[in-house]
Amino acid sequence: MYSGMSETAMKSLLAIYAEEAERYLDKIVPEEENPQSTIYKAMRYSLLAGGKRIRPVLALAMGELLGVPKDAVLPFACALEMIHTYSLIHDDLPAMDNDDLRRGRPTCHVQYGEAMAILAGDALLNKAFEVMSAEGLRLAEQGIIKSENVVRIIAELSKLSGSEGMIGGQVVDLESEGKSVGEEILRHTYACKTGALLKSPVYIAVECARGAAVGDADSIDNAEKALLRYSELIGLAFQIKDDVLDVEGDSALLGKETGSDDKENKTTMVTIFGIEKCKEMLSEMTDEAVRIAGSFGDKGAFLRWLALFLLERNY
Amino acid sequence: MYSGMSETAMKSLLAIYAEEAERYLDKIVPEEENPQSTIYKAMRYSLLAGGKRIRPVLALAMGELLGVPKDAVLPFACALEMIHTYSLIHDDLPAMDNDDLRRGRPTCHVQYGEAMAILAGDALLNKAFEVMSAEGLRLAEQGIIKSENVVRIIAELSKLSGSEGMIGGQVVDLESEGKSVGEEILRHTYACKTGALLKSPVYIAVECARGAAVGDADSIDNAEKALLRYSELIGLAFQIKDDVLDVEGDSALLGKETGSDDKENKTTMVTIFGIEKCKEMLSEMTDEAVRIAGSFGDKGAFLRWLALFLLERNY
Repeated sequence: MYSGMSETAMKSLLAIYAEEAERYLDKIVPEEENPQSTIYKAMRYSLLAGGKRIRPVLALAMGELLGVPKDAVLPFACALEMIHTYSLIHDDLPAMDNDDLRRGRPTCHVQYGEAMAILAGDALLNKAFEVMSAEGLRLAEQGIIKSENVVRIIAELSKLSGSEGMIGGQVVDLESEGKSVGEEILRHTYACKTGALLKSPVYIAVECARGAAVGDADSIDNAEKALLRYSELIGLAFQIKDDVLDVEGDSALLGKETGSDDKENKTTMVTIFGIEKCKEMLSEMTDEAVRIAGSFGDKGAFLRWLALFLLERNY
Repeated sequence: MYSGMSETAMKSLLAIYAEEAERYLDKIVPEEENPQSTIYKAMRYSLLAGGKRIRPVLALAMGELLGVPKDAVLPFACALEMIHTYSLIHDDLPAMDNDDLRRGRPTCHVQYGEAMAILAGDALLNKAFEVMSAEGLRLAEQGIIKSENVVRIIAELSKLSGSEGMIGGQVVDLESEGKSVGEEILRHTYACKTGALLKSPVYIAVECARGAAVGDADSIDNAEKALLRYSELIGLAFQIKDDVLDVEGDSALLGKETGSDDKENKTTMVTIFGIEKCKEMLSEMTDEAVRIAGSFGDKGAFLRWLALFLLERNY
């Protein structure tokens, strides 16, 4: 409990941020009645399938921390969720991880066929950039943020989700299959795969703050450094937690089978360090993230709580 | 022959534009020595496999027609080629068209495996936006074009390549398989699939002209209208020509098998109108495109020639 705000209040805040993102996603990928309507169904099937919405939640929370208007953050926060969703659809494909179940439901290719799932993934990645540019233009025309900062956000996000970021992590993952990999490669992969996309909320919030000229330049620079470290920590912790849950999680809660890493002979943090050491690392990383969030005082209360919440999650 | 420029001079100009694009593509997707180097190999394999480079050539030629600095056009022109290439890689996948041969070489998934081909396609689409935003930012910082026009280009291109554009066309194509479709749906599909991406060069050239403030606003507006119609015509003509070549083309020159539309029972303009009527349509559309290019006087000479060149191509 921080700053007089209860656990319940924090959970409500998490739900509010997530719902704001959901509403926006629902609006920007509508069910269209046109010759290509199937792709909208497939996109919505995966995009609106629940999920923790951790990326848009972080962007919205960090935007609020910096005093940025929510309207400025939302399109970028939701673009990020679309990029995340496309990567899940493509990861689940038979040629990739060949997963039939995601969030307790048949995966996109099981539901709509492989060809449509490939296209739905492509369309979501593409749509992320459609939304950022079209909405960015609108925000710039209304004088809410500057065009230059819109371009900067697109530049940062595309880099973090590309061949030097998330996709790069996928490639290393793919090529490590059946091989024993060392800690260094594994950390690189984790940093690329999750860390990359979890840093994006920081750039979204910070560039919106710069583009909207809220707060002074120095304090935005300092906030950027602190929030990037926070994201790095919770990003890595998130992956390690996934490794731990794959060993001792509840498949019903997780909405997918557990024990898959072991079955596939996959090197994870658990195979390298063992489960106890992993829990210790998780706890240390969370402590540091909590300290960083705490440095923002009351305004950091939600991010402090979120780091602990992610540590304790069982799904 | 136009304005005293010979066929040879025009062919050289075509080669020069294409080479400028190739050199830029070679530079922005370098062979990297890092843990994810395989994806760069796969991206380069498909990206630097030749091809007509019609999209970047059009963007460069239209940019020159409008007096835009070539440095401003190149990043966007090449991003467009990356989008085109990603769509070919994904189209060729076993779950989609299942093609083994492209431009006389094994397709990306035959060479690198299906998983890597999916990721290479994703990475090229993503990279297109990385290049447009990062280079757009650089151009804006150097005062070559304004950030606002960078955002506009990204907005136009992403829309044309997305679920309402190229991907939408793919979806309709996919769902029409084995069915007899009418002329209207076929025209819609063709407009989405090729027309969409062929309109992008116009937006690139025109927004660069606006962003660089070359020429007066009215003449840019008029040029935009004329060039969009020109693109629409050669885009549709391009697709009809492909249909004709699939019937009477030379598979060695084409670098792929012919007769595939017939084998797959695919509705094409040839099955709807017959080959003679298609050739007539091609000729009429080319005539109109030539007239439009001619309205630009000497500056339109290359676009006039190009429309005829595309009509007469046998590959």
